[in-house]
Amino acid sequence: MTEATEDAVEHRTLIVAGTGIAGLTAAIYAGRSNNEPLVIEGDEPGGQLTLTTDVANYPGFPEGISGPELVNNMKEQAKRFGADLKNGIIESVDDSSRPFRVELRSGDVYTADAVIAASGASARTLGIPGEDELMGYGLSTCATCDGAFFRDEDMIVVGGGDAAMEEATFLTKFADTVYLVHRREEFRAEDYWIDRVEEKVEEGDIEILRNAEVTELHGSEAAGVENVSLVRHPEGHPTEKLDDADLADEVEHFEMDVGAVFYAIGHTPNTDYLEETGVEMDEEGYLKTAGGFDGGQTATDVPGIFGAGDVVDYHYQQAVTAAGMGCKAALDADEYLEEHAESDASGAAAEDAAVAESDD
Amino acid sequence: MTEATEDAVEHRTLIVAGTGIAGLTAAIYAGRSNNEPLVIEGDEPGGQLTLTTDVANYPGFPEGISGPELVNNMKEQAKRFGADLKNGIIESVDDSSRPFRVELRSGDVYTADAVIAASGASARTLGIPGEDELMGYGLSTCATCDGAFFRDEDMIVVGGGDAAMEEATFLTKFADTVYLVHRREEFRAEDYWIDRVEEKVEEGDIEILRNAEVTELHGSEAAGVENVSLVRHPEGHPTEKLDDADLADEVEHFEMDVGAVFYAIGHTPNTDYLEETGVEMDEEGYLKTAGGFDGGQTATDVPGIFGAGDVVDYHYQQAVTAAGMGCKAALDADEYLEEHAESDASGAAAEDAAVAESDD
Repeated sequence: MTEATEDAVEHRTLIVAGTGIAGLTAAIYAGRSNNEPLVIEGDEPGGQLTLTTDVANYPGFPEGISGPELVNNMKEQAKRFGADLKNGIIESVDDSSRPFRVELRSGDVYTADAVIAASGASARTLGIPGEDELMGYGLSTCATCDGAFFRDEDMIVVGGGDAAMEEATFLTKFADTVYLVHRREEFRAEDYWIDRVEEKVEEGDIEILRNAEVTELHGSEAAGVENVSLVRHPEGHPTEKLDDADLADEVEHFEMDVGAVFYAIGHTPNTDYLEETGVEMDEEGYLKTAGGFDGGQTATDVPGIFGAGDVVDYHYQQAVTAAGMGCKAALDADEYLEEHAESDASGAAAEDAAVAESDD
Repeated sequence: MTEATEDAVEHRTLIVAGTGIAGLTAAIYAGRSNNEPLVIEGDEPGGQLTLTTDVANYPGFPEGISGPELVNNMKEQAKRFGADLKNGIIESVDDSSRPFRVELRSGDVYTADAVIAASGASARTLGIPGEDELMGYGLSTCATCDGAFFRDEDMIVVGGGDAAMEEATFLTKFADTVYLVHRREEFRAEDYWIDRVEEKVEEGDIEILRNAEVTELHGSEAAGVENVSLVRHPEGHPTEKLDDADLADEVEHFEMDVGAVFYAIGHTPNTDYLEETGVEMDEEGYLKTAGGFDGGQTATDVPGIFGAGDVVDYHYQQAVTAAGMGCKAALDADEYLEEHAESDASGAAAEDAAVAESDD
């Protein structure tokens, strides 16, 4: 019933997948290049940054700015230059002929001369027992979204990067004690965040469990998370040690009663809709782009499809690095579109010339 | 007399060369990583963006923001996180031993564990007769700085990129007619700017001279620019045609009476102070950095020296791409500094272990 008839297919010069920082920056630049981008919002409109209360390190805002406000500013800016934002999720891109055929889950179909994939990444999970049942019932991947539901309870944050530190610090507003569970000894977070966490440790609001991992979540939809199983080994990565006959005995098993668990263990890129295309990805699904120092850095190996933001970047993952890439993708796409238009025109000119010649 | 005595040498963890968008973003991030960056302003404090009246495409400001305001915001933000800004120009970096030795033109000397080169690029010139004599006397590389001095005069803008379009458009506020002189048929500017220029052409404020080049400037310090010699060839690059015996005759020579000439023909990276180091550069002086997709993208081939912004990027050259690279450089430098500190510590630990062993 949602099948689109061919005459319902709208053609666009450029489709941008995603309205996070990368997608919106691409939309701003593409708008200014007169490519009238259609920007498909995806299932997390505004992207990861909408989950951040206070963005202190995006350059240009000395007092900081909230994630949603920064995202809204960029939406306004993109619209001002002619971008159309549309609610929807891209199901697939077909690159078997040109223009590309872009199908949404709603059944809407567009054709597009170029596509910028800026669909970001989604929170990763541990894949442990209890996870599926309790996700949304005491287990969460977003402290700023869900923290306030668990006032005065003990909470666990799993992770060792910036996000884990930020979430643990944030959750002290609500929690009795926040237990920060990290599978290694060292954190890879910014010193800024480690310092904030250490202040909270001194104040008795955060307790750090190093070299520890959560192995099972206990509870129910009705009661939420009630109890959590953990393991610990002094050399870190305790679940790996469990698989080693010589080391398994050294692994300490213990339980904790907590009311909520927050995962902050990284992300998986949202690139499923490109699986049937020729776009090369690594085993985790991150897009491979050309890189280098000339133009075309964001080009995938399918001419006309570009990648920007967390679908490409598994390392820096900052708002301003995503913005930088979004800008590059729009400029690369514009160059591609202009060359494409020129080659079409010269192709037509060549045909005209051939006709003229046969007239002689 | 400006020779520094060794005991006047101050040690810093991290020195950032440049206070443009790349340098200031690096300073913001380095400050948050507790690397207390010393930021040397260079001879164009605030960088290229201070010359831009209205920055419409920096993501986050839907109504636009002036270049100087954006730069000042970032300065405030960097200071807030512990960056020290210092007026001065770096004369040389010595990488023959560690820490690096950084000497300023004033004679001040610092040592530093890591250096981020974000010293940007400076306006390029044509190298034609009359240029040296008239620079600052009717010849300028900055329309926003100098345009208002030449009210109601005819002006020439040389170039075909965004900067040339923006400057030509801006100068219509003051000029009788702006002549946009471009050596090729096609412009490589954004469509946005080409459209703005074409509007001004229709209004009679701009006249475009394609496939033309300025070959000599005539005038004096007292009278300024009075007259300009130009050449034109229908296939573009007329000065190249002059060197070809078969084509030289087809080149048209002509003169124009104008009161001012503005160059907008690109930039040369400010990387002279790194010439004695092992940092690899291309023939124009752009720094070669590691690139790729993992961490360390901004690393030069001298460990501990990183590059960001217009010293690396000869293609995109946008405020937000420079910011993205500045962020990466600070994160890369922080990782380097932490590894360096760790290896120093483990070196010390190894020595302790050796001592303990010999005690047995």
